[in-house]
Amino acid sequence: MGPGREDMMTGEALAALEQSDVIIGYTVYLGLLGERFQGKELLSTPMRQETERCQLAFQEAEKGKQVALICSGDAGIYGMASLMYEIGKTHLETELVVIPGITAASSGAAVLGAPLNHDFCVISLSDLLTPWEKIEKRLVAAAEGDFAMAIYNPSSHKRKDYLMRACDILLCHIEGERACGYVENIGREGTRAVTCTLRELRETQVNMFTTVFIGNAGSEIINGKLVTKRGYQIERNTGICRNN
Amino acid sequence: MGPGREDMMTGEALAALEQSDVIIGYTVYLGLLGERFQGKELLSTPMRQETERCQLAFQEAEKGKQVALICSGDAGIYGMASLMYEIGKTHLETELVVIPGITAASSGAAVLGAPLNHDFCVISLSDLLTPWEKIEKRLVAAAEGDFAMAIYNPSSHKRKDYLMRACDILLCHIEGERACGYVENIGREGTRAVTCTLRELRETQVNMFTTVFIGNAGSEIINGKLVTKRGYQIERNTGICRNN
Repeated sequence: MGPGREDMMTGEALAALEQSDVIIGYTVYLGLLGERFQGKELLSTPMRQETERCQLAFQEAEKGKQVALICSGDAGIYGMASLMYEIGKTHLETELVVIPGITAASSGAAVLGAPLNHDFCVISLSDLLTPWEKIEKRLVAAAEGDFAMAIYNPSSHKRKDYLMRACDILLCHIEGERACGYVENIGREGTRAVTCTLRELRETQVNMFTTVFIGNAGSEIINGKLVTKRGYQIERNTGICRNN
Repeated sequence: MGPGREDMMTGEALAALEQSDVIIGYTVYLGLLGERFQGKELLSTPMRQETERCQLAFQEAEKGKQVALICSGDAGIYGMASLMYEIGKTHLETELVVIPGITAASSGAAVLGAPLNHDFCVISLSDLLTPWEKIEKRLVAAAEGDFAMAIYNPSSHKRKDYLMRACDILLCHIEGERACGYVENIGREGTRAVTCTLRELRETQVNMFTTVFIGNAGSEIINGKLVTKRGYQIERNTGICRNN
């Protein structure tokens, strides 16, 4: 579904929904679907019950229906595609097709400027299924590789200090003045983009609907936008690619 | 523009093209635009002349026209957004809006299965603007962080052996049996997805229209699809998240 706004979905995704007999998803996302889809058979399972949601999708498909299982962003990035293939191991007669969508790394970056642009990492701070030590290791690796970063799930009710903890790890490897930023409510009511330094980001309390961006060594704030250099112009001016 | 197929573009992107007086882009992408756009004023600059293309966009905008500058994939990922902000430093009266698109990490992953799914890195093997040593450093960091990877620009006429060189670096840190794959001509005629091991990938000559995917430690081939685990089911079966 991308960020949630229908005009940020692809024609391919909308066509799949139109052709489906049943649409299954977390209640919040079903509610974001346009009027014309509300007449379809809409099924849901409670939050966290992703496995049950996938099983439901196969059960409905096995009744001969065309089923669409929806999730926000891109189904292949912290989405439902992987779990569907896992559970599909025991439902081989059902054809599974993944339709890509706009992930927050792309939609958030577009609001903030061009913070990724070159080589980058996407890292989730959610330790629901990932040990925190593993997340720390990835933050260190991303900093050592001088990757730009998109940070997903930077905060939740139970993890209010996770972004601060992540910034403390990054600050061991990256200067405090590093250009960063974050975007709230991408593609929804109240979209808000903020640029700041890594040190300022450490002191910021973001909400769970926020995607955080860390620039690389060549990133800078240009007229309020977070921009990671591609190199062309720099190369022409100085002969070296400053973002490398 | 995403991969190039119109139904893989968002409504927002299509609306921007429809509202534009001028559409500027590399000739190949202008040619991929649908019939209804061919009547617009279409302008181009030769390959490699991205700076001139951006300057042309501002020049046309300063004539009072609404201009769309197009590129493939996502404008914010190895696209034109960053260069537009750079050149925009001297064109402050022109409003610049970035419209996100489906990048090859998402569109390629959807064809191959769910190879990214969790934390991942996007790395380009093009050393046109990046020293090869920097690319090597990022490959090592990505391997050490156990990131899944999407490799852009894995080959070109002048860089036929770059994927082999990248695989040799990864093979110093990752087992040869690591689940990998690649996709050719995403969203175009002749789309082809192949799964293989990292050792097999090293021996593969891919073309320049290929995106390569390297799984993480928990990735596996499920019914011909490259799948990186999300964790739910594994967690339930064994109490540990095998992709971490």
